[in-house]
Amino acid sequence: MSTDFSEDTATDAVLDSFADTPDERLKTMLGALTRHLHGFIREIEPTQSEWESGIEFLTAVGQMCDDVRQEFILLSDVLGVSMLVDAINNRKPAGATESTVLGPFHMVDSPQRELGEDIALAGDAERCVVRGHVRSLDGTALAGAVVDVWQADDAGFYDVQQPQALPEKNLRGLFTTDADGSFWFRSIVPRHYPIPDDGPVGKLLSATKRHPNRPAHIHFIGGAAGHSPITTHLFIEGSPYLEDDTVFGVKKSLVRAVQRIDDPDLAVRYNVENPFGLIEFDVVLNPTS
Amino acid sequence: MSTDFSEDTATDAVLDSFADTPDERLKTMLGALTRHLHGFIREIEPTQSEWESGIEFLTAVGQMCDDVRQEFILLSDVLGVSMLVDAINNRKPAGATESTVLGPFHMVDSPQRELGEDIALAGDAERCVVRGHVRSLDGTALAGAVVDVWQADDAGFYDVQQPQALPEKNLRGLFTTDADGSFWFRSIVPRHYPIPDDGPVGKLLSATKRHPNRPAHIHFIGGAAGHSPITTHLFIEGSPYLEDDTVFGVKKSLVRAVQRIDDPDLAVRYNVENPFGLIEFDVVLNPTS
Repeated sequence: MSTDFSEDTATDAVLDSFADTPDERLKTMLGALTRHLHGFIREIEPTQSEWESGIEFLTAVGQMCDDVRQEFILLSDVLGVSMLVDAINNRKPAGATESTVLGPFHMVDSPQRELGEDIALAGDAERCVVRGHVRSLDGTALAGAVVDVWQADDAGFYDVQQPQALPEKNLRGLFTTDADGSFWFRSIVPRHYPIPDDGPVGKLLSATKRHPNRPAHIHFIGGAAGHSPITTHLFIEGSPYLEDDTVFGVKKSLVRAVQRIDDPDLAVRYNVENPFGLIEFDVVLNPTS
Repeated sequence: MSTDFSEDTATDAVLDSFADTPDERLKTMLGALTRHLHGFIREIEPTQSEWESGIEFLTAVGQMCDDVRQEFILLSDVLGVSMLVDAINNRKPAGATESTVLGPFHMVDSPQRELGEDIALAGDAERCVVRGHVRSLDGTALAGAVVDVWQADDAGFYDVQQPQALPEKNLRGLFTTDADGSFWFRSIVPRHYPIPDDGPVGKLLSATKRHPNRPAHIHFIGGAAGHSPITTHLFIEGSPYLEDDTVFGVKKSLVRAVQRIDDPDLAVRYNVENPFGLIEFDVVLNPTS
């Protein structure tokens, strides 16, 4: 079947070669990969030297990966593939909180914390209170829902990126909503930060005059019995790079202002100095079936 | 522009992000890559876990590469991409020798040899004589043309794969055509062989029930003044895998029989035992405008 290779027969020959793949899904994926990859090559008509540059780039991306660095995920991120896969897997009815990417800094064993606890274990940054409700799509408040939060500090670093300088489990916590479905915690206002750009993906961004930055955000995973969990961010209104997040993570529905609150009673309740910054973010979950 | 990411806006957002790329060719390539890659994702709709498997596979391919192993080229080969790029870059008028892939075993400093020399420096395999002419497209014989040949032995190994067991520059040579444009050399009949299949590409072949083999062949690069050089193979008629070369390299016009010759005078001329195997392969070059 591939006995007489030509530009005309090339794609069918490769598709034929996968004909005996036992796993139907794998066969479908490799067939689509072949068609789209050949379509790219046929459109671009790379020179031999451009093809070699492509091989070298992919090799460098693979070789940049180690236990703590995943350069292929970064490549997927800056090509919008990670967010596209996220969107496809998280189609929600209107009103449900929208998803965005998990990112590399989630910690499976995040600490359980009491409502109102301060997740900022170090530093002298601008304080804020984050509060909201976890609700079902019909508005019902969900008591006993779990909210997993993590964020960078005011210098743009997660605890795991600076284990020498930052306390373990800084700016992380698992909170359980109270009887009226609400949660609240103290923290600091996060800062925008660059994705790691000292590797081949950074070179790609540089060659295309793209910056490597993400706007300021707080990560959330919200979960409750009988509902699909949601992995998302709250983005800080006014942050640089909100218009051009290098990983394309921003959705308008997820942007929230840091409100300046001057309310001595509320400050006492939240155990912060008056006036203070307040971010409100409700997590609306979609019931399963 | 990417402030409100969705499945609808995803591809345009990524295309926009490359708008300021100074190198127009790079911008064109990244635009096409984005469209075809997103097209693949939209068609397949991978689950998060399938996307992770893809990331892991590409990472493993990169990490298999070292100074002597290029797993991304193998991946390109088994997906027919290497041959497609080769075909696009070597469109020839009818009658010119067709191209096929260079492969990883070419040696830049191949030894200059006299016409008729034996390139088989070791082993006890089936002998053969390879002869032909280098011609221009109009049939003119090209004197002083250079033919660079290299091949595996009867066990399927190139010298560089077994530096302990095989003499340096075994089964390689640069020949210069004589006044009537002809070349000839002695060698052994090559054997089919597998591409390296102990890495992730081998796992892919295995998961798709594909074998890793290439049919028996002798590599040629033919070059002459005023003509485009050609990189190609001569394939041995009757070799296993001629119908399903795992890298899709076979073109019908390149397949040649090993003729059994019983001619004592010719045997003396070629300095081989009578009877002997003879392979005839003309290299027809396209003049540069």
